[in-house]
Amino acid sequence: MDTLVSFGQLFLGGFQTPTLGFLLGGMFMAAMGSRLSIPDQVYKFIVFVLLMKIGLRGGMEIRNANLAELLLPAFFAVLIGIIIVYGGKVALSKLPGIRPVDAIATAGLFGAVSASTFAAAMLHLDDIGMEYEAWVSALYPFMDITALVLAIVLARLVTQKEDKANDKEAPKHKRKDINIQAIVVDSLRGSALSALILGLLLGLLTKPEPVYESFYNPVFRGFLSILMVIMGIEAWQRLSELRRVAHWYAVYAVIAPLMHGAIAFGFGAIAHHLTGFSPGGVVLLAILAASSSDISGPPTLRAGIPTANPSAFIGSSTSIGTPICIAIGIPLFTELAKVVF
Amino acid sequence: MDTLVSFGQLFLGGFQTPTLGFLLGGMFMAAMGSRLSIPDQVYKFIVFVLLMKIGLRGGMEIRNANLAELLLPAFFAVLIGIIIVYGGKVALSKLPGIRPVDAIATAGLFGAVSASTFAAAMLHLDDIGMEYEAWVSALYPFMDITALVLAIVLARLVTQKEDKANDKEAPKHKRKDINIQAIVVDSLRGSALSALILGLLLGLLTKPEPVYESFYNPVFRGFLSILMVIMGIEAWQRLSELRRVAHWYAVYAVIAPLMHGAIAFGFGAIAHHLTGFSPGGVVLLAILAASSSDISGPPTLRAGIPTANPSAFIGSSTSIGTPICIAIGIPLFTELAKVVF
Amino acid sequence: MDTLVSFGQLFLGGFQTPTLGFLLGGMFMAAMGSRLSIPDQVYKFIVFVLLMKIGLRGGMEIRNANLAELLLPAFFAVLIGIIIVYGGKVALSKLPGIRPVDAIATAGLFGAVSASTFAAAMLHLDDIGMEYEAWVSALYPFMDITALVLAIVLARLVTQKEDKANDKEAPKHKRKDINIQAIVVDSLRGSALSALILGLLLGLLTKPEPVYESFYNPVFRGFLSILMVIMGIEAWQRLSELRRVAHWYAVYAVIAPLMHGAIAFGFGAIAHHLTGFSPGGVVLLAILAASSSDISGPPTLRAGIPTANPSAFIGSSTSIGTPICIAIGIPLFTELAKVVF
Repeated sequence: MDTLVSFGQLFLGGFQTPTLGFLLGGMFMAAMGSRLSIPDQVYKFIVFVLLMKIGLRGGMEIRNANLAELLLPAFFAVLIGIIIVYGGKVALSKLPGIRPVDAIATAGLFGAVSASTFAAAMLHLDDIGMEYEAWVSALYPFMDITALVLAIVLARLVTQKEDKANDKEAPKHKRKDINIQAIVVDSLRGSALSALILGLLLGLLTKPEPVYESFYNPVFRGFLSILMVIMGIEAWQRLSELRRVAHWYAVYAVIAPLMHGAIAFGFGAIAHHLTGFSPGGVVLLAILAASSSDISGPPTLRAGIPTANPSAFIGSSTSIGTPICIAIGIPLFTELAKVVF
Repeated sequence: MDTLVSFGQLFLGGFQTPTLGFLLGGMFMAAMGSRLSIPDQVYKFIVFVLLMKIGLRGGMEIRNANLAELLLPAFFAVLIGIIIVYGGKVALSKLPGIRPVDAIATAGLFGAVSASTFAAAMLHLDDIGMEYEAWVSALYPFMDITALVLAIVLARLVTQKEDKANDKEAPKHKRKDINIQAIVVDSLRGSALSALILGLLLGLLTKPEPVYESFYNPVFRGFLSILMVIMGIEAWQRLSELRRVAHWYAVYAVIAPLMHGAIAFGFGAIAHHLTGFSPGGVVLLAILAASSSDISGPPTLRAGIPTANPSAFIGSSTSIGTPICIAIGIPLFTELAKVVF
Repeated sequence: MDTLVSFGQLFLGGFQTPTLGFLLGGMFMAAMGSRLSIPDQVYKFIVFVLLMKIGLRGGMEIRNANLAELLLPAFFAVLIGIIIVYGGKVALSKLPGIRPVDAIATAGLFGAVSASTFAAAMLHLDDIGMEYEAWVSALYPFMDITALVLAIVLARLVTQKEDKANDKEAPKHKRKDINIQAIVVDSLRGSALSALILGLLLGLLTKPEPVYESFYNPVFRGFLSILMVIMGIEAWQRLSELRRVAHWYAVYAVIAPLMHGAIAFGFGAIAHHLTGFSPGGVVLLAILAASSSDISGPPTLRAGIPTANPSAFIGSSTSIGTPICIAIGIPLFTELAKVVF
């Protein structure tokens, strides 16, 4: 009961945290029809700086870390990515009005990871003083790439089956082989993962402390606040697209972040008991799972699953999944970690 | 006499203040034919951050303010907006070579408010330690929207009268009703006012102190300095446009900022005696009136008064009005407040 | 021997300095086929801020400097610019497969100065605590403009000679007079030199200390790190262009930065003995000479020598010259100064 009250207070207080406030503020301005917008090149720059900051810090701290500890959570991150995409495909495909490729693309996007949501969760843990392992940001690609690759592979299998069914005498050259390695490499080359990896490498191999302390760390909070405004505006604008597709996408987008987070929280708890994975690390693993990709995921899936309807998968992720994850997921799993561990 | 000397010193010293120096520096580089330019997307980002900073601070401080005090200055702000636009229309229309719609658009732009000039004035008061009310930034929309709406309404009335005179049998559907509410709402949705309102709301409803202290406040001075360079370059470039229109625009642009500031200073002094409006607040009210809109006003008036000549109203405001307001208006009214109160 | 060891350590340590690390990191990401990129408008903004920072600091410190000391190094800067361009033209023209105009454009670009390399050198000296004169940044235009103007003039002379040879009855009006003053003025108006000059003027004539301390100085290191990533990406991308031209360009690009730096180091040493030019100043003069222009030089030479092949001169400078100068030149000449003086 005390826990419920304390979570209720935290949840209400959550609307006062700047991160969530800026997200809701952006949504509110867009809802009021404001012409407020942040230029696209500035958005890309802000994302680059945030990911470099996360990467640099991870890289600097990994130097003294025992990387054997990373193995189990990294394996779990891959497993969670597979569960989310495969489970999402099966669940969504059964719903009326949802085509298999759209089900797969949506599940893929919810399995992939949002750098901005992850940054918001890290800032939240820093603010309340809950510690986490230095290498947690290195878990990002394990879950992100697994989800994107699995979604693209599943979608190609589905498309090939349909092609066969539709046209039994289809020319053989149309049946392309699925090159998993190419999809993995292409994901790693995306701008978001590249910035994170660059930051990790520089943090690990150079001594970027002066530039980290004088620039990347001080601007982190401000840049994240602006990113939240952009995401809020985008979330509202995408809502109109979502109205044009089956309502089941919205239902999925409300439930999925919390369910995915809960699954990951469970795996995190196992790692906590087996290898001493920190409570903060468990929260961040849960948020990795609860978040859905907003930067590199959408273009990757558009290119990789060209027959899927972007209004469905991007709309449900951006306008419902991400706000739910930030507004409810972050305080929920943080509070859960306080109670459970 | 001492006052004169002290103002003289202040005025000369003013050219050494970075804010004015960067404005003049930008003008100088443009005058020398330099290809120096700040990319447009960066300009928009800088304006967004400055307005968020002003809004956030206002919002955070309004929490503890007695908002009843705001009523009289807000009413005065509306009144000043009306006086500037109506007075400007009457005065400019009498001059040779100035069409009524151009007179109205010019008066409207000088009645509307410049966020960058306002930011420069706030920084100046902060630097010399003159205090002002937390809610002064909330006066901005009262004067700004009043001036823009009144100008658009007056211009439509003039155009309708001309239409009637030109074509007595004009089809009735051409005589559009003037929808004042739509113009107000449209003004509030502009990017500049939206950013200010978003900042105010976030400052009021969330707890943005950490992000304000770590980002918005530290970058304020630097971003303002870059904005001043941009405005200086723009001021010089617009001068050539101004040469193509009647010289009376230039005369108006020199006199108007100081006269408008003096009128507002008078109203501010009344509020000072009636409700204890602070001297710093009086100075900022005077600068709101003395400034002319540079971000959201020009596009609003272009769209709202399509028959007016942008070279006339934007040229006179950007290339003469704004530099005069920053170079003379800010030190003049600050010094006046020191002497009078 | 100790010196050799110490340089070896410094060189290896150099790869750990953030500046070089970020450059190599950018090259590495590009080599891996990453789609990482920094938007062009952000790049221009970053360059503007870096040059303003260098200019402001120079201007502020020049106020108390004895400018007579500047005369000899400034004369040497002009002389070095001439030697680099004339020497480079003669040497490159003798190599097989290199056209005279391409030889001149390449020598011109290597004679002109890189603001970003210069910034990296200044940061390096600041970090190790080696002092230098306040006015060293004012040497920049002396070498930069000399090199660009001389290259354009030499190229025109060559082109005129060829025209004459090809067509003895060529119409007289084709033989344009070479307007050196116009080329100098045009160079000064370029965006890079304009930003530097604006900063110098503002530092000299206004009191920009508050904005320098609150913005330009704190973001310097961070912005430079991002610029290095951009330059690294660009360096790798240009390599493919370089492969299409004569290999001698690559050989020149490896040798030239170190040879030019050594020549300038020699002149700096003379100034050190004659007028007490500081060791840090000698290093910076060497880096001015060792660097090749990356911001304003390429467009100036494209416009001024339209018959030259940009793949040759920009490719060799960006993809080999600049990395060599930053990775080897900066630590080499710094260490040399420690030993010699």
